[in-house]
Amino acid sequence: MGFESVILRLEIQHDKTSFEKVVTVITQYRGDIVAMDVVRSGVHSSVRDIDVQLERDGYEGVVEALKSLDGIQVIHVSDRTFLAHLGGKISIQPSMLIRNRDDLSRVYTPGVAKVCRAIADDPRKAHSLTLKRNTVAVVTDGTAVLGLGDIGPEAAAPVMEGKAMLFKQLADVDAFPICLDTRDTEEIIRTVKAISPIFGGINLEDISSPRCFEIEQRLQEELDIPVFHDDQHGTAIVVVAGLMNALKVAGKRMEDVRVVVNGIGAAGVAICKMLLAAGVKRLNPVDRFGAILRGGVYEHPMWQWLADQPQVEDRPGLLSEVIAGADVFIGVSRAGVLSAADVQSMAEDAIVFAMANPEPEITPEEALPHVRIFATGRSDYPNQINNVLVFPGMFRGALDCRANTINEQMKLAAAGAIAEVVSESELSELYIVPSIFNEQVVAKVREAVIRAAIQTGAARRIPPDIGLPVSEEDELAPVAWRM
Amino acid sequence: MGFESVILRLEIQHDKTSFEKVVTVITQYRGDIVAMDVVRSGVHSSVRDIDVQLERDGYEGVVEALKSLDGIQVIHVSDRTFLAHLGGKISIQPSMLIRNRDDLSRVYTPGVAKVCRAIADDPRKAHSLTLKRNTVAVVTDGTAVLGLGDIGPEAAAPVMEGKAMLFKQLADVDAFPICLDTRDTEEIIRTVKAISPIFGGINLEDISSPRCFEIEQRLQEELDIPVFHDDQHGTAIVVVAGLMNALKVAGKRMEDVRVVVNGIGAAGVAICKMLLAAGVKRLNPVDRFGAILRGGVYEHPMWQWLADQPQVEDRPGLLSEVIAGADVFIGVSRAGVLSAADVQSMAEDAIVFAMANPEPEITPEEALPHVRIFATGRSDYPNQINNVLVFPGMFRGALDCRANTINEQMKLAAAGAIAEVVSESELSELYIVPSIFNEQVVAKVREAVIRAAIQTGAARRIPPDIGLPVSEEDELAPVAWRM
Repeated sequence: MGFESVILRLEIQHDKTSFEKVVTVITQYRGDIVAMDVVRSGVHSSVRDIDVQLERDGYEGVVEALKSLDGIQVIHVSDRTFLAHLGGKISIQPSMLIRNRDDLSRVYTPGVAKVCRAIADDPRKAHSLTLKRNTVAVVTDGTAVLGLGDIGPEAAAPVMEGKAMLFKQLADVDAFPICLDTRDTEEIIRTVKAISPIFGGINLEDISSPRCFEIEQRLQEELDIPVFHDDQHGTAIVVVAGLMNALKVAGKRMEDVRVVVNGIGAAGVAICKMLLAAGVKRLNPVDRFGAILRGGVYEHPMWQWLADQPQVEDRPGLLSEVIAGADVFIGVSRAGVLSAADVQSMAEDAIVFAMANPEPEITPEEALPHVRIFATGRSDYPNQINNVLVFPGMFRGALDCRANTINEQMKLAAAGAIAEVVSESELSELYIVPSIFNEQVVAKVREAVIRAAIQTGAARRIPPDIGLPVSEEDELAPVAWRM
Repeated sequence: MGFESVILRLEIQHDKTSFEKVVTVITQYRGDIVAMDVVRSGVHSSVRDIDVQLERDGYEGVVEALKSLDGIQVIHVSDRTFLAHLGGKISIQPSMLIRNRDDLSRVYTPGVAKVCRAIADDPRKAHSLTLKRNTVAVVTDGTAVLGLGDIGPEAAAPVMEGKAMLFKQLADVDAFPICLDTRDTEEIIRTVKAISPIFGGINLEDISSPRCFEIEQRLQEELDIPVFHDDQHGTAIVVVAGLMNALKVAGKRMEDVRVVVNGIGAAGVAICKMLLAAGVKRLNPVDRFGAILRGGVYEHPMWQWLADQPQVEDRPGLLSEVIAGADVFIGVSRAGVLSAADVQSMAEDAIVFAMANPEPEITPEEALPHVRIFATGRSDYPNQINNVLVFPGMFRGALDCRANTINEQMKLAAAGAIAEVVSESELSELYIVPSIFNEQVVAKVREAVIRAAIQTGAARRIPPDIGLPVSEEDELAPVAWRM
């Protein structure tokens, strides 16, 4: 902490300068050489990799100074973040070492043939005899990546790999990134369907609105494995979890509060839907042009869906008008859309989730004097509304019960489970959602998701720890549980 | 060895029988109970998993005997091969543990954004900053799996996973199975192109002929990463490697021998092409209807291609006629098509590769009295012509030099490298190809492939161990080599 490690690849021309001069420059910048390798050494020049520890964010100066030396060429600089990504962040691990022909014939030809035949006879066995049991595709087209927007499938890969790391570390789910070289809705649907046989679930990620709605809906209808657009539902679930606890702190009830949701894109629509499922009776969805009104007519099919809901109010106006007197503001829009006066106009004990990325709709400094509870998407303020709380446990549960879908009840159960991780005694204005490193989160979400899946008929297998009678679907699973 | 381990899941009804009776039956069948777990225990019955060691192939008897006991229900039997596949045979491994928010922000949001931007600015950086560097898709549609034929994508998965295990263990290549739920040529091409951005290479596998030809050719033309149909080229390369050494033993030259190839499907066509590239001047491709003739007219475009080659002879006849006087027979057809009289009619010091699966075109017992060198695809005879000798080193080399294709020169170089692993002093009638566990194979194939790729302009990076000057393309790779 406080230091930055960089690796400098330098070509040094022997007739013009020397390694000693390089050391002198690095030392001048208070850099510490911790390792050095000669990559290639020739008569006239040599190429060296030099590991330097520098004060954080200090490496631009030393690089410029080295570049200005005659006879030095800076071929490449790798900082610590780049180093963490070099060569990719996930790899494939075999379950066993193939030591001899006997092993080989068991996992590959000819022994594998009887396993293939067993699956051909009963395709459900793919869930226990192949990696389908534990593997999720993290699918993107690279059109809505972080705050970067449409950067394409190659550039999206580091995010998808990071997600795969979290899936594995937090929930022991194997996740593999699929970065699609197409933006066409039908082509994406066709491609995901075509590659689906090896996967037990599909996590859609960073696909821009409105295509994401149809892609998710169609895939969910046409596949018999769970399909989950994390940007929509992951966000919605953790928002509802946070709101459940925030309402407890504020002494209010979901049925009584008026909620303004600002920014009705992919995440905003999903949040509105989940709030209704969670029991909200007065909802004001607001976008740039103002509030979406009950009974209104809208081109966007999701907006029309909202306008048809009885809980959506017929309260016209721009954000600053609609927010007056509201109990809850949930923003998934952009920095600066909310003023201090806006939050001041809200009801007593106001709750504000300002989740725009990377800068929230209003800063905590401006909002806090006027609100009871304040949350953002950022890790450097309290109450981080982070969907890393959701997807690992959600898919762990869905895979363990071989769910054929992720339905509203499962999502609501996940939200309740996340909220419950924060005990009554811990609950406060500054602690409404658990840390993503809290080890209870995944286990609680998993169990809640499985129970909801069983109750709603989405489960095709009852995991033994859930404690129901042995089911038909258990048939092939026992040994896997014990391994 | 000599024993079979099985796990029996039994439900035992307490009022009708007892665990003691189960033990008695197992003991009668000379089974040894090595472990026992109670899965569930109730008032009326209990479910137990019993690990039993039995004489090999002996478990059907004990299972039947247990089933005939009143009060016993055999829920499931898992043998050792099935156990090796339970839960899948590969998993995803993260490169590092995310211990805290600092780690998280480096591999995931927000720190990952600068890595994404670097790739968006220069997509070539995907080769070093994502798993593309080391990852191959093993793509099948499940239409020509082993000897099983068209068993579908789910049932093909265990073979693809086994292949991924071999890729990793033998060559440290990360391979992920893609099992396609489509048999349509255009749809397969479109799907593989759509998912290609995350992969550094495409290994096509078990796709039936003739679709496999167009799929491979089109993908190779339309993608800038190597595409390799292993059933064609893996087989062809190891055949040519084996033939190079067999000819040394027999004291003959590639330019002089007459070669009969029987079975002109995917593998047969590829073998013919490689034999021509390797210098064969007299070739007789033979299928069921007889020999393909130079100057003939054929519907199948690959047969037509062969008919247009000057080295293909105008020698009509069925296999038994064409083989008379030939020096070499290479069979990728079916069991029993070759008689003792056929091989007896061949030239002195005949070479026969009888590679039909699972039973060769002629048994070694029938052939050996009449031929100098005999090889098959089986591991229980000498001289196993196994494409596991090819694909690990081929892709290791192609990935390390970021090849944009796998061309004929690279394939021929791989064949030469495999042949060279067997030294002059080791070489004999019974030892023409190395074992797949021979540790020299991958390293030699890799280096030969890289050198051929550089010579033919297919390489986009020169690995430092190949010992050429630092290239422009090296820019981002240094740290990856050292990790």
